[in-house]
Amino acid sequence: MNAPLPSHMLPEIAQRETPAALIDALRGHFGDRCSTALAVREQHGRDESSFIVPPPAAVVFAQSSADVAQVLGLCNAYAVPVIPFGAGSSLEGHLLAIQGGISLDVSRMNQVLAIDADDLTVTVQPGVTRKQLNEAIKHTGLFFPIDPGADASIGGMCATRASGTNAVRYGTMRENVLGLEVVTAEGRVMRTGTRARKSSAGYDLTRLMVGSEGTLGVITEVTLRIYPLPEAISAAICFFTSIEEAVRTTIDIIQLGVPIARVELVDGQTVGMFNRHSKLSLREEPMLLMEFHGSPAGVKEQAEQVEEIARERGGQAFEWATTPEERTRLWTARHNAYFAALQSRPGCRAISTDVCVPISRLADCILASAQEAHDSGIAHFLVGHVGDGNFHFGYLIDPLSQTERELAESLNEKMVRRAQSMGGTCTGEHGIGMHKIGFLQEEAGDAALDWMRAIKRTLDPKNILNPGKIFCM
Amino acid sequence: MNAPLPSHMLPEIAQRETPAALIDALRGHFGDRCSTALAVREQHGRDESSFIVPPPAAVVFAQSSADVAQVLGLCNAYAVPVIPFGAGSSLEGHLLAIQGGISLDVSRMNQVLAIDADDLTVTVQPGVTRKQLNEAIKHTGLFFPIDPGADASIGGMCATRASGTNAVRYGTMRENVLGLEVVTAEGRVMRTGTRARKSSAGYDLTRLMVGSEGTLGVITEVTLRIYPLPEAISAAICFFTSIEEAVRTTIDIIQLGVPIARVELVDGQTVGMFNRHSKLSLREEPMLLMEFHGSPAGVKEQAEQVEEIARERGGQAFEWATTPEERTRLWTARHNAYFAALQSRPGCRAISTDVCVPISRLADCILASAQEAHDSGIAHFLVGHVGDGNFHFGYLIDPLSQTERELAESLNEKMVRRAQSMGGTCTGEHGIGMHKIGFLQEEAGDAALDWMRAIKRTLDPKNILNPGKIFCM
Repeated sequence: MNAPLPSHMLPEIAQRETPAALIDALRGHFGDRCSTALAVREQHGRDESSFIVPPPAAVVFAQSSADVAQVLGLCNAYAVPVIPFGAGSSLEGHLLAIQGGISLDVSRMNQVLAIDADDLTVTVQPGVTRKQLNEAIKHTGLFFPIDPGADASIGGMCATRASGTNAVRYGTMRENVLGLEVVTAEGRVMRTGTRARKSSAGYDLTRLMVGSEGTLGVITEVTLRIYPLPEAISAAICFFTSIEEAVRTTIDIIQLGVPIARVELVDGQTVGMFNRHSKLSLREEPMLLMEFHGSPAGVKEQAEQVEEIARERGGQAFEWATTPEERTRLWTARHNAYFAALQSRPGCRAISTDVCVPISRLADCILASAQEAHDSGIAHFLVGHVGDGNFHFGYLIDPLSQTERELAESLNEKMVRRAQSMGGTCTGEHGIGMHKIGFLQEEAGDAALDWMRAIKRTLDPKNILNPGKIFCM
Repeated sequence: MNAPLPSHMLPEIAQRETPAALIDALRGHFGDRCSTALAVREQHGRDESSFIVPPPAAVVFAQSSADVAQVLGLCNAYAVPVIPFGAGSSLEGHLLAIQGGISLDVSRMNQVLAIDADDLTVTVQPGVTRKQLNEAIKHTGLFFPIDPGADASIGGMCATRASGTNAVRYGTMRENVLGLEVVTAEGRVMRTGTRARKSSAGYDLTRLMVGSEGTLGVITEVTLRIYPLPEAISAAICFFTSIEEAVRTTIDIIQLGVPIARVELVDGQTVGMFNRHSKLSLREEPMLLMEFHGSPAGVKEQAEQVEEIARERGGQAFEWATTPEERTRLWTARHNAYFAALQSRPGCRAISTDVCVPISRLADCILASAQEAHDSGIAHFLVGHVGDGNFHFGYLIDPLSQTERELAESLNEKMVRRAQSMGGTCTGEHGIGMHKIGFLQEEAGDAALDWMRAIKRTLDPKNILNPGKIFCM
């Protein structure tokens, strides 16, 4: 079942040996929190990507920073890879033991350590998920806005520089992580940042770690910004006769500086998948799903502005979801898009795309890519955080069909090249993982790649931290 | 005049030789754009800090990235320091040739290269100043919000991770730089980032460079986010009978999530300096200077909320500045605070402080520090970007008086320790430079400092890029 990747995106695969002595040492220290059971290893040997590689040699369940330091110290001594594992929701092969080694599961490090409501900050362990966090701070009237589709772990969201539907207003993980505790390759515990909202104190190690995909250190604590729940929230949907109209509406909204909180594009076919998966009865036409945050008057004003812009662009059936229940239903459908799509073709796997372009090029980029997908006949879905210029086609392939995989990869490749030629990026929020190594090389260029490799080499000289991700060493 | 620094903040001073052969090679290449005239060297051998060290051996005026690459290639071959120089407005000794070498003046690289109004981005050379940039984009209805007191260069603002009065709403340089062109120590031209608003493509080299104070590379091009000018702007001032009331008003505003654009604290004594310097007649009492951005209705609503909060905290004489002229007058006075303070004691130099704390600790931190300054009898001013938890005392010392310098440094030291113990940072926006090396060490800890040094060593193995700043190698 392990269909090969197109060669330009294949990371170096060289399974390293995991010595029995290391496993013994881990078992000695962690007892049954170190597992070599095949089922456990297999569960930690895959993610939401479509790659299939052999599972890790063992899984260790950490409960503290000291545990993490212990694992790293031992693995560094044996030069054996360590792959941090949170919720398992990566889309790009981040969690796969491409060079063998140990999966370091931090999902049991799931304590909310401090809620500093007066400072609008919270400090959590890396295994806390975004939904768990929001549940834990609900009573304060504050919320954490970053929301990738899955109920990802905060540690994993840091590692991939995740964002989601609220980024257009609240930023991404890059803007919302204030500080970290990190365990280095040698097992040393390091702190970055403070709880102050801004700082010019030395190199920005926090931002270096955010997006480093487990290759520079293991995140063991995260301090985040949180926000007052808006006094008023309203959501609206609006349908368009073409994707172009929906996208041009979005571009107008952003260029006019309307402080919209969320603006999501869903194409007609994908709305159909929502309907079937979430038992909705939406019109199966290109749709914008929007949300406005602010004071009651401010929300009303924004919404009126947007309604007018949409109408000028041919938007129809502008509908309000004013009750929390209606809103939740729509947003749950949106967050389940990926699973709705998978369900639409039983047994399929999705190859996700994730380009992000400057907003003025968004219509061109989406339309050309939609045309190509349509012409190819491949099953696919389309959703997008279009306010940021970020969108996702997902190609639904039969994992056994090499032809379908190659078709999907070639569509993705064309789209990435298009986005890059427009001043955009191959990944807005999913990360490079194993999947986009070749694309990063083209996007960043040799000089920047050499810097990344030099930093990696100096901070992880034995290349034990999630090797074979982001770049080949 | 070169009064010694307290030893805990003294960087390693070891003037390196600048070989005549290097000067000859630079002269051969740059002609009269390489100057060894004493006046030129002296002008490049100081900044707004109070340190006095020998000037650089020569100054080269670069006009292009190729020029910068040429200088770095040559200096790297000779292992001679290079200090990038923009507007000369650093407050922390960043520009001083503490180890000798060449000042690389990029102020002639002052072209606005691209205005992509539809994408809300602009690309500039590093010598463009913030005022020049705003002048150049005025016709588009867009503006660049980051505004340190001085008319700093964009390159320098990147290097120090600058912010200013608008950061509470628009973020700092960290949030507003999308990408860079950088020349490395070996003279290689590198690009970081894209024009897309977000990206998860590899290590965040953009953020690594932002705040690196010229120690990792020379910034030769900057792509920035710009913003639609708000439809409505209004400014207000409000006076309080104590600093505490003013600060508690600010804390309430932030905790309630009012999207205020600017909220600046000025103490009564400093208001007096404004009055004399800018010919104003403000009440000489603790004052908040605020600005609201949005739609006309939104601005009105925010302002009413804030007026009510201020009144509950004893705020008096809430006054509106609704015409652009009134607003400009108030903000110009605010931006000239530093110079107004210097003028208040002819011949003095200012020792600036720059702590930033979590907002809930702001009142405690400011009040204790104000009491200490008052008790010491030292001349000082106090202004603050209090919405971010960031404030500046400036101690106005006679540069010839070792006693005054020591007093100022000891007040600063107490304040930094206080801020750090509250979860804050020794510098919100000015950077480490030569002045805060000891404080950074305490704040970041050994493990993080070791990472910074390791990164520096690997990217600049001969330690030619602005050596003796941020840390001692």
